[in-house]
Amino acid sequence: MNVHDLATPALLVDVDAFDHNVHLMASDRPGERLRPHVKAFKSTALAHELDVAGHHGFCCATPREVEGMAAAGLGHDLLLANEVVDVRRLQAMTTGSEARITIAVDSEETIEAAVRGGVSEVLIDVNVGMPRCGCAWRDAGRLAELARAKGLEVRGVMGYEGHLMVESDDQAGKVEAAVAKLLQAHDEVGGDVISGGGTGTWRTNRWVTELQAGSYTLMDTAYAASGLPFRQALFLWSTVVSVNRQGGYATADAGLKALGMDHGNPQVQGGDVWYCADEHTVFSAAEGHDLPAVGDRVRIVPAHVDPTVAYHELLHVIRAEEIVDTWPVDLRGW
Amino acid sequence: MNVHDLATPALLVDVDAFDHNVHLMASDRPGERLRPHVKAFKSTALAHELDVAGHHGFCCATPREVEGMAAAGLGHDLLLANEVVDVRRLQAMTTGSEARITIAVDSEETIEAAVRGGVSEVLIDVNVGMPRCGCAWRDAGRLAELARAKGLEVRGVMGYEGHLMVESDDQAGKVEAAVAKLLQAHDEVGGDVISGGGTGTWRTNRWVTELQAGSYTLMDTAYAASGLPFRQALFLWSTVVSVNRQGGYATADAGLKALGMDHGNPQVQGGDVWYCADEHTVFSAAEGHDLPAVGDRVRIVPAHVDPTVAYHELLHVIRAEEIVDTWPVDLRGW
Repeated sequence: MNVHDLATPALLVDVDAFDHNVHLMASDRPGERLRPHVKAFKSTALAHELDVAGHHGFCCATPREVEGMAAAGLGHDLLLANEVVDVRRLQAMTTGSEARITIAVDSEETIEAAVRGGVSEVLIDVNVGMPRCGCAWRDAGRLAELARAKGLEVRGVMGYEGHLMVESDDQAGKVEAAVAKLLQAHDEVGGDVISGGGTGTWRTNRWVTELQAGSYTLMDTAYAASGLPFRQALFLWSTVVSVNRQGGYATADAGLKALGMDHGNPQVQGGDVWYCADEHTVFSAAEGHDLPAVGDRVRIVPAHVDPTVAYHELLHVIRAEEIVDTWPVDLRGW
Repeated sequence: MNVHDLATPALLVDVDAFDHNVHLMASDRPGERLRPHVKAFKSTALAHELDVAGHHGFCCATPREVEGMAAAGLGHDLLLANEVVDVRRLQAMTTGSEARITIAVDSEETIEAAVRGGVSEVLIDVNVGMPRCGCAWRDAGRLAELARAKGLEVRGVMGYEGHLMVESDDQAGKVEAAVAKLLQAHDEVGGDVISGGGTGTWRTNRWVTELQAGSYTLMDTAYAASGLPFRQALFLWSTVVSVNRQGGYATADAGLKALGMDHGNPQVQGGDVWYCADEHTVFSAAEGHDLPAVGDRVRIVPAHVDPTVAYHELLHVIRAEEIVDTWPVDLRGW
């Protein structure tokens, strides 16, 4: 099937760019040194490609991602890198599961929930500078002791320097300072695992035993702007449904319900985006380009990969114009 | 079932606020004078409530919305208020359908696609000032003639003054000027239907024969800020999973994958939002409020209703804390 036969809007994955990204990362962080984060792509089929590339442990952000990965036979070592206090939700996730499931905890309440929820292994989640989850590093040892006293296996620590992912001013120094807190916490906690980092700090975070990166597989304009060597593999395929030559703009049939908008507007190949409406992206011709005609297809490059994929049911895998595979986005929701 | 028994994140609809909104709008635009836009809520169960309230014609933005409404027995008079040039997609929508389906056209190409796609009725879509779809009003008569020559029934015109929905400076005058173009086009086109407007111009657009409003049913912070008398009925229910008292912030388990972000951050009841991450909203206590505890539930008010609902599978309908109904969000996708 040819890409022009697809109904639009539809997400495309350029498999050559994807393979480049997977191999580049795997050459730097082989095997267990990478724990790919499925939140970026929410697809067990894509995760399977990473498993084949040698990464058998995965990071999840929601219970449903954990359950879906386990059901797909990818439950070798799943880290729910997020806090959950809903005991019934944890029980539903763990009961009868053959997957190895580790969960992040950062408080007495989350430790208690893990115990009651049937979780047996945890990481102590440490705040390394971004206000979100994570305990103070000075509190990590006390929480590890508490967790162990309640019968949990504490595998180590995690911390996410999300505030530094697209930092351009001395990222290396700032990451080192952030990770220093994680390492101090690890001194108190013990265990084999120091988990953290992401696509944006893949080069600069040399201290974690496993990197939690996922966006590098597909990429977006925000990460591309920070000069990473990963290639854009994800495109939103759309059809021009209206052209106003006098006004100098064209309207494509993919809008903000097909795109994560928290990083702002997407880019259109050959165009300058004016704005996105619910089901439309309006753009003028970029310099050196002509306005398209009604019926033409255009590629839109998302500004933020994770919330974009979460709107879609399928990833259509292409090589040039041929559709070579279809990966369901089967890990959506919570 | 009590709302505290729900796993989070989950969308809630306050049924008293919803009923207020439905009745207020129906008192001003009864029956066919309102063509509710399903794109705002993407749920045939919610649409059924509007059908019961007397509105039997509906507006859709995607072929899937049309198909879903028809399959749910709500196909009395469906307007696809959008341009489609994919003939196979139109054929799939019209073939074997017992629904009355009208589609917007704004060019020779969209008229040709409608003919080949098995559509029998159209509206001429007129640009009334917002750059998106829609022909120049001076061109509407020519397109209507062309459509009729090709065997299509032209029911009238439509035009959407989307650029004026939250206009605070002389909205009435600006809407009148915009609709003047639509009325001039209608003089040339003929037909019974002058379709347009939305929640934001429900008072000021007195010229359309049918108002295309949908957001008024559920509302969001953007429309609330413009002083409309519709009540907030939609809430994102979430659980506090981490609290940093020293830092003065709490983290709830619903983030930008559960919220449309194109209008910016949502609001948290009792809190001041710092930012949203993929699966988290971080906030401090609002003046006069305390920080919540881990495990507490908080209500988040979305900034934009349409792309928020499109991330969810269910609308949980509540009266006070009791869940009285569940409406599937069954019209997602394209």
